[in-house]
Amino acid sequence: MDLTILCEELVEKKGGRMLLVVMDGVGDLPDPKTGKTPLEAARTPNLDSLAPASSMGLSYAVGRGITPGSGPAHMSLFGYDPTATRIGRGVLEALGVGFEMGPKDLAFRANFATMDSKGNITDRRAGRIPTEKNEKLVAKLAREIREVEGCEVILRPGVEHRFVVILRGEGLSDELSESDPQATGVPALPVKALSGAAERAARCANAFVERLNRVLADEHPANTCLLRGPAMFPKLRPIRERFGLRAGAIAIYPMYRGLAQLVGMELLDAGHTLEEEFAALRSRWRDYDFFYLHVKKTDSAGEDGSFDRKVAEIEHLDSALRAAIELGPDVLVVTCDHSTPCPMKSHSWHPGPFMLCAPAAFPDRLERFTERNCARGSLGHFPALDAMPLMLAAAGRLAKFGA
Amino acid sequence: MDLTILCEELVEKKGGRMLLVVMDGVGDLPDPKTGKTPLEAARTPNLDSLAPASSMGLSYAVGRGITPGSGPAHMSLFGYDPTATRIGRGVLEALGVGFEMGPKDLAFRANFATMDSKGNITDRRAGRIPTEKNEKLVAKLAREIREVEGCEVILRPGVEHRFVVILRGEGLSDELSESDPQATGVPALPVKALSGAAERAARCANAFVERLNRVLADEHPANTCLLRGPAMFPKLRPIRERFGLRAGAIAIYPMYRGLAQLVGMELLDAGHTLEEEFAALRSRWRDYDFFYLHVKKTDSAGEDGSFDRKVAEIEHLDSALRAAIELGPDVLVVTCDHSTPCPMKSHSWHPGPFMLCAPAAFPDRLERFTERNCARGSLGHFPALDAMPLMLAAAGRLAKFGA
Repeated sequence: MDLTILCEELVEKKGGRMLLVVMDGVGDLPDPKTGKTPLEAARTPNLDSLAPASSMGLSYAVGRGITPGSGPAHMSLFGYDPTATRIGRGVLEALGVGFEMGPKDLAFRANFATMDSKGNITDRRAGRIPTEKNEKLVAKLAREIREVEGCEVILRPGVEHRFVVILRGEGLSDELSESDPQATGVPALPVKALSGAAERAARCANAFVERLNRVLADEHPANTCLLRGPAMFPKLRPIRERFGLRAGAIAIYPMYRGLAQLVGMELLDAGHTLEEEFAALRSRWRDYDFFYLHVKKTDSAGEDGSFDRKVAEIEHLDSALRAAIELGPDVLVVTCDHSTPCPMKSHSWHPGPFMLCAPAAFPDRLERFTERNCARGSLGHFPALDAMPLMLAAAGRLAKFGA
Repeated sequence: MDLTILCEELVEKKGGRMLLVVMDGVGDLPDPKTGKTPLEAARTPNLDSLAPASSMGLSYAVGRGITPGSGPAHMSLFGYDPTATRIGRGVLEALGVGFEMGPKDLAFRANFATMDSKGNITDRRAGRIPTEKNEKLVAKLAREIREVEGCEVILRPGVEHRFVVILRGEGLSDELSESDPQATGVPALPVKALSGAAERAARCANAFVERLNRVLADEHPANTCLLRGPAMFPKLRPIRERFGLRAGAIAIYPMYRGLAQLVGMELLDAGHTLEEEFAALRSRWRDYDFFYLHVKKTDSAGEDGSFDRKVAEIEHLDSALRAAIELGPDVLVVTCDHSTPCPMKSHSWHPGPFMLCAPAAFPDRLERFTERNCARGSLGHFPALDAMPLMLAAAGRLAKFGA
């Protein structure tokens, strides 16, 4: 069963103040040269000061062996079942470029592509045009196409050939096929309604492509587009309603701000650096019951396979964390959304280290916050979906179940 | 949720080559004299060479506290939910005697039994007649009863009083009651259809018993039979379709060959010894993505309560394993289907030691493959149904879930 549903029954409106620090992708494998993971290699006096009195464990976002994307991995940590709460590609792409979606919005991740005179696709990525070119094309399209079939059209550039198309209007649906033929030498496909409720959405999407083709007729190689990952903004019950939490999100990157917004967290002004994130935490400390603070650069270092940079980013977080410890959170969790091992240069299926620091946490007396210690911790191996119940419990926010 | 269903969505058609070595019943309890389990007592240089770089854990086939039969225990390891995929007794019995069932086959496990002149059962096992007698009776029956009510009849002898009855034909069903009255001094029960769809099957079964009673009239004490565990061959989606694996099975004993066949593995010529099994592995190494290699004698030693023989069988496997290690599998898992502790002389509910050896496995740096080390490993305690996702992940055969 999904334990978070039970928590909704048991949750109390008051209790301790909670801080969830997500060090994106921090879980790793040992460096082949030194035999140490970045967490093992880093000097982390502040994390070390918390470790002995904390409970540790290893958590998996979706399941053993499953490598999660950032979307499902965060949903789990926020207490939303990641397999039941699927967030479409279009929505993630829109969140990723910082667009604040609403309930009437249908988002597509779109590619600029190349079409020959016969209407066949010759390059599904338009030769990966430079991002600056992309920005100019999107600006031109935005001037020329403001609405189709009574739907507002909103466009946002992405990186290289990628951009986001949002159709905003009544009666839209994401039960649509994609226009990407997944091959060259053939025409783009029409977007088809996969249910009766999606007929208007299909009509709008196809009308948009037609208009775009006219506007971009002379813009070879970016003279058409492919629409992928259609997705409406998912309707999730907000974290306040489910778990009784006024929740504030501190994240710099749009994707994570968007994910927090999806579950009804308020977005704080997080600035552009780790120090600014922690300054935001300090200045708004009395305003929320729950803070989510996202640390991006540990993941970026893992994606780049840069062990030394990952160590440096962990040390950077450790020193910034001092400010948070001084605020005296009743519950402090340090964990990751998923592992991003440097040797793999990508997200992985390895469970993530998890440390729960609270007066009522069983003190595991492990000296440091590392993957290896977490494997021995008293929290065991658990789905990240259990993180919210654990945090609520440690904050004294869950009533007894049954008598 | 059943994670293997999610895996089907994520599975990629290529990736590393995998070897699953199942040491049947290897998990054990400490010997009261030495305090060591057979795995702890055995000299296992090859397993020891793999251990430090591997991830370990303890897996339970069905759930904590549940003692599994070989059927459900193997289904779990193969990635098939053992509670949703129930394999009827008749099928297991047919597989156990080496009969290759097809989709039109209805199998019963049958007992020779003794009936008095009033038609009451006086011995439900016919005095446990010798197996040689059983074979002669089955041969006689096979000559005399080739079909009933348009169904082909196929018979196979088992051990002592046990034999297998297969009815092959159109329109059969296993929604049937058993004819065993579970008591003596009363007549055998007629087989009853438990649904309209099973009426033909019930008619055939009862007609078979009538014919058998005539053929065996002078064969006291084996002058009738009891039909138990009616089961059609289950329709399972093959492992190739579900997980994209060309899978080869190397097993000597019919039951395990049958279980592998149920999930669509191809049966390799495994010979009669452990050495021949590993020779088959070597000779077919390039032909499959996934190998299941079954080691029977560890279980037999446990069933007999023979600690020393179990140690010897583990050492035997260890030395044969050298050949497999030299083939360089990308993923090597060594585990058991269930524990068969010598002190209990039977399958037990104790979780099974599990070792995952792959370049991307987190190295637990545990020195040996033992129950005690597995309890401390980074894979934690997990349902064996997670074994397939873990193996697929370690082989690089699962795409990321979500973005």
